[in-house]
Amino acid sequence: MSRQRCRIGVIAPASRMSAEVAERVPPLAKSLYPERTPEIVFHPQCFASHGHFAGDDDTRTQAFLEIANDAGFDAVWWARGGYGSCRMAEAVMRGLSEPARRKAYLGYSDAGALLAGLYRAGFATVAHGPVAHDILRDGGDAAIARALAWLVDRAPATLEPTVGTVSKTAAFNMTVLSQILGTPLQPDLAGHVLMLEEVSEALYRIDRALFHITSNPAIRQVAGIMLGRCSDITPNEPEFGLTEEEIARYWCRRSGIAWLGRADIGHDAGNKIVPFGPIAVGVA
Amino acid sequence: MSRQRCRIGVIAPASRMSAEVAERVPPLAKSLYPERTPEIVFHPQCFASHGHFAGDDDTRTQAFLEIANDAGFDAVWWARGGYGSCRMAEAVMRGLSEPARRKAYLGYSDAGALLAGLYRAGFATVAHGPVAHDILRDGGDAAIARALAWLVDRAPATLEPTVGTVSKTAAFNMTVLSQILGTPLQPDLAGHVLMLEEVSEALYRIDRALFHITSNPAIRQVAGIMLGRCSDITPNEPEFGLTEEEIARYWCRRSGIAWLGRADIGHDAGNKIVPFGPIAVGVA
Repeated sequence: MSRQRCRIGVIAPASRMSAEVAERVPPLAKSLYPERTPEIVFHPQCFASHGHFAGDDDTRTQAFLEIANDAGFDAVWWARGGYGSCRMAEAVMRGLSEPARRKAYLGYSDAGALLAGLYRAGFATVAHGPVAHDILRDGGDAAIARALAWLVDRAPATLEPTVGTVSKTAAFNMTVLSQILGTPLQPDLAGHVLMLEEVSEALYRIDRALFHITSNPAIRQVAGIMLGRCSDITPNEPEFGLTEEEIARYWCRRSGIAWLGRADIGHDAGNKIVPFGPIAVGVA
Repeated sequence: MSRQRCRIGVIAPASRMSAEVAERVPPLAKSLYPERTPEIVFHPQCFASHGHFAGDDDTRTQAFLEIANDAGFDAVWWARGGYGSCRMAEAVMRGLSEPARRKAYLGYSDAGALLAGLYRAGFATVAHGPVAHDILRDGGDAAIARALAWLVDRAPATLEPTVGTVSKTAAFNMTVLSQILGTPLQPDLAGHVLMLEEVSEALYRIDRALFHITSNPAIRQVAGIMLGRCSDITPNEPEFGLTEEEIARYWCRRSGIAWLGRADIGHDAGNKIVPFGPIAVGVA
């Protein structure tokens, strides 16, 4: 980092963050980095509420831009997922200025809509990985420690094991990627190993999302697909007849995309970090 | 019609049809058309079962092609929706021959993936409207009577009231349209009044689907959007904060697409018929 202590700004582009997160994350950071404790600033917007969202679209957009465009921050960290990034992505992309390009971005799930836009706009340090809210999961401290080790030091041990063994990577929640296909947020993933995970969807929806993703001509330019964990799968009536891995293998075969096995990502505390693009070398 | 009695072939590209449908629809057709009773042939595939589907992908594909490519049929009628058309659409489109172009196609919901492919391929008589399974709904006889009046006579009274007052129309379940965007099934809807309906989705998913649809540059060429009924909306946690109509108006405003009000379509017995393209004049 360009300064002594890494400064991390936390924003919530989707759903509202629990206050408990702001109470628990900083002490954990202090215990992990007693000498050079990263400063974690929770933007007040994280606690705002507007129907489904952590504040209305404009509030969430402004909060994101305040952190991203402030040269005093080294990183933008997602408070959590939920739903809402797609509503503000266009205004965020329009409002980003030069300091925004010199920081790291870390989130997953709903964050994918914004991560895609940032990566598409050429931002160099964009990654799929744990959010602050993950501290509330069983074993969540490990997820936070992993996020911090990447945000502070880009520690190689935080990375999904395939990262670094291939030329480029990207990772998405499959529904979120599906819902930006054909929009101005769809990133160019040619030559990337594409890792996909899912949570709380029925198998027929997983099948439909993978039809959608693997039928997209630009997506067919990926180097291959890896399947992350699909957790909390909701009931399918009748039984679908295939597992999520059989479904992913099927759509790879159908589309001519290489099936590259399982990825160590998912909606859980084990969620490893997947930088977008070639692996970032060192820390700015 | 080119012959005395209209011959209608029923196929099930998605989920399995209830046997009760085959028992109840033909007598209703006979009571409605005692002199020129349409012949309704339920392909045996309608009763097949393979996990989630009414037979495996190949079985469903072959059944569709047997009816569509047979010059002895005047119409292809969907047994029901569910999920599965996208799995077979590519093989169906590849296998259709000349007689397939000279008949009518009627279905909705999951059928949208195939209706889109047929319309994109220049088929002239493709419509969004009731399926045979709708006879099981409350008041379902009216839905079947409407479907038959269109299949047999193209009766104008069966049409959604906006049809015929505008140059072109199309209708979709919004999730189904969302899931074919950016794939080879996406039809050119420039200049069309696009009617969208939904069933059994939470409001945040309706919002996300409408983000996806209205953010697509090709979709932005539509003449406008009309919102059909959104029924059986599942709980949103927390309260979303907008109704489905407010959501649709929002995304129209955001995208510059004209908001044209409500459409008389939906997952119910009142579902009116919406031909794709300009209104078909008369019956072949």
